[in-house]
Amino acid sequence: MKRILVLGAGRVGGFMAEDLAAEPDFEVTIADVDPESLDRFASAGSAQTVSRDLSDPAVVRDLARDHDLVVGALPGDLGYRALAAVIEAGTNCADISFFPEDALTLDEAARARGVTAVVDCGVAPGLAGIVAGYEAARLDRADRLRIDVGGLPVVRTWPFEYKAVFSPADVIEEYTRPARIKRAGRIETVPALSAVERVDLPEIGTLESFITDGLRTLLDLPFADMEERTLRYPGHADRMRMLRDTGFFDREPITVDGVSVSPLSLTSRLLFPRWRLAPDEAEFTVMRIEADGEQQGKRVRRTYDLLELTDTERSHTSMARATGLPNTVLARRLARGALERPGIVTPERIGADVSLAESVMAELAHRGIGLAVTESPL
Amino acid sequence: MKRILVLGAGRVGGFMAEDLAAEPDFEVTIADVDPESLDRFASAGSAQTVSRDLSDPAVVRDLARDHDLVVGALPGDLGYRALAAVIEAGTNCADISFFPEDALTLDEAARARGVTAVVDCGVAPGLAGIVAGYEAARLDRADRLRIDVGGLPVVRTWPFEYKAVFSPADVIEEYTRPARIKRAGRIETVPALSAVERVDLPEIGTLESFITDGLRTLLDLPFADMEERTLRYPGHADRMRMLRDTGFFDREPITVDGVSVSPLSLTSRLLFPRWRLAPDEAEFTVMRIEADGEQQGKRVRRTYDLLELTDTERSHTSMARATGLPNTVLARRLARGALERPGIVTPERIGADVSLAESVMAELAHRGIGLAVTESPL
Repeated sequence: MKRILVLGAGRVGGFMAEDLAAEPDFEVTIADVDPESLDRFASAGSAQTVSRDLSDPAVVRDLARDHDLVVGALPGDLGYRALAAVIEAGTNCADISFFPEDALTLDEAARARGVTAVVDCGVAPGLAGIVAGYEAARLDRADRLRIDVGGLPVVRTWPFEYKAVFSPADVIEEYTRPARIKRAGRIETVPALSAVERVDLPEIGTLESFITDGLRTLLDLPFADMEERTLRYPGHADRMRMLRDTGFFDREPITVDGVSVSPLSLTSRLLFPRWRLAPDEAEFTVMRIEADGEQQGKRVRRTYDLLELTDTERSHTSMARATGLPNTVLARRLARGALERPGIVTPERIGADVSLAESVMAELAHRGIGLAVTESPL
Repeated sequence: MKRILVLGAGRVGGFMAEDLAAEPDFEVTIADVDPESLDRFASAGSAQTVSRDLSDPAVVRDLARDHDLVVGALPGDLGYRALAAVIEAGTNCADISFFPEDALTLDEAARARGVTAVVDCGVAPGLAGIVAGYEAARLDRADRLRIDVGGLPVVRTWPFEYKAVFSPADVIEEYTRPARIKRAGRIETVPALSAVERVDLPEIGTLESFITDGLRTLLDLPFADMEERTLRYPGHADRMRMLRDTGFFDREPITVDGVSVSPLSLTSRLLFPRWRLAPDEAEFTVMRIEADGEQQGKRVRRTYDLLELTDTERSHTSMARATGLPNTVLARRLARGALERPGIVTPERIGADVSLAESVMAELAHRGIGLAVTESPL
């Protein structure tokens, strides 16, 4: 019996706990500061629950020591400290808290403890990085990588035609933070929401695609040109740019009617209720990855298409599934001792191991997260 | 020598003072609470200046008593009380403060004092109402009246492609206040910024037209269908609706980060600097009035087109000229005793006197505010 600890009972943490608890040889405990978010696991009997303050690294360390594997799904601002604590406890882990700090700064500590720590293995970051690392390994010359990804509601409601399937504050941060891309082999910084294009996707129709920051460690791959892009219904980028460029996303407080207020705080108060996904509201996750390069003397483009719909039967959003499943596929291997590579393991490192990447993608397809791959000459 | 008092030294008040001071038989005094706004008149010697608090009706009454005519160009929130004070003083006046109160409530007082008080005689309200009253008088059956009017910068700058040629707070009020229109003889209320259409205009190109509230007393005219519309560059209405419908134009304070703040106040702080017309920035005022009806057994449409550009030589905006000139044309007549009709005189009442309307329009054309009229069968 393998004892697995899931940190965080949010949408993705909850999905992963349920997914892992279905294995007969796994005993799953889910931990969260909020007892209410744990209720449904206690009542379903699917996992044991622990209500603890996970912002305290000592609490995380002590919990991690009692388990064979930790699956991390905390908010980004708690993620780095929690991962450091898990490594200190000497427990393997698979973390998708997507914290802003550089995970590789924990590489040495993980190696020293013999801990394998898989990080950022959701969908994008995550599956996109596996594909990127895989293609970088397969191509003789890696020319261009482009990732388009988005989570959207099925029903489009004016004016935003958007519901946030993860933290809406993180969405605005993504619209604000300058994006690092690669052009002709050099890393450049461009504004978020820039280079807006229309993209036609099967089953979905026409979406809008614009550059956002998301490549992170993928920038070290040998592709000469790289962009990560966000997909939305057409018109969204222009509205968001209007709000951003007029100052509505500014954090810095300004004085209004004699009081000091952050425009972003007020904007969040007005926007977020309108961006809230209703219970059981249908949504989808769509991703397209294009990798261009030379292979055996010929220029090729391989396109990977993903389309996930809401799991209405079990009330999981497509985003929770698409984010959680890559991580639990790897967590299963870690728990069973089939992925021992002490240190920080990024998605592109998994992808660089061609046979591991192919087996992970095959297992994901089996579990419903299938990438449709097409290859065409260039 | 006629002594004329101009209340308010803003863009329009300043233009009117200058325009009237050019008459050899007029002695013009301009009054404002802000001494700085009076400086250029003092230094040019074009008008006498008085710095007084015009929000105090007693001050206005005493000033009015010493003059033969008052020309009102105060902010809307001071306009009604000031007009009441001028009537109390027994002095004729021509007022374009466009206050929200119903001017006709002062009709009895004006009649009792023998005061002729011309109100709202700018461009729209104003010239548009003269044309509406004139057409209502000429047509045997008045079917439809449509007024499209806007003031716009020549250079279009994303995202608003707009500069406010009058108070920006009044512009937002115009985007917020439900609009009263007439359909099939009945007054209906529709949202502002609704029924967006494209309109092609000579010399200007394609603009966007949407319904705003502006008909006021024109609703009493016999046209079965009536709309007033605002002209902007295409796309503006959608952005403004997005802000309005998301709550950014709400006056009512909400609690943000522990302080109470009005979303409209914050929005104004962010928007207004971007809506500020730069000194000598080229702008234009455009208006089209369509009046449909039956005349001598035939259905006709008469279209009145106005296009005014910035007077770069004398640094007057087209809006100040187009708003100020209809009022000074009437002020001249009042000052010379050629428009004695005690009571409140609205633009449509002027228009209803066909020969007066024609003489006013001819004088306006002579002074550079010419309406191009075309007639076509329907």
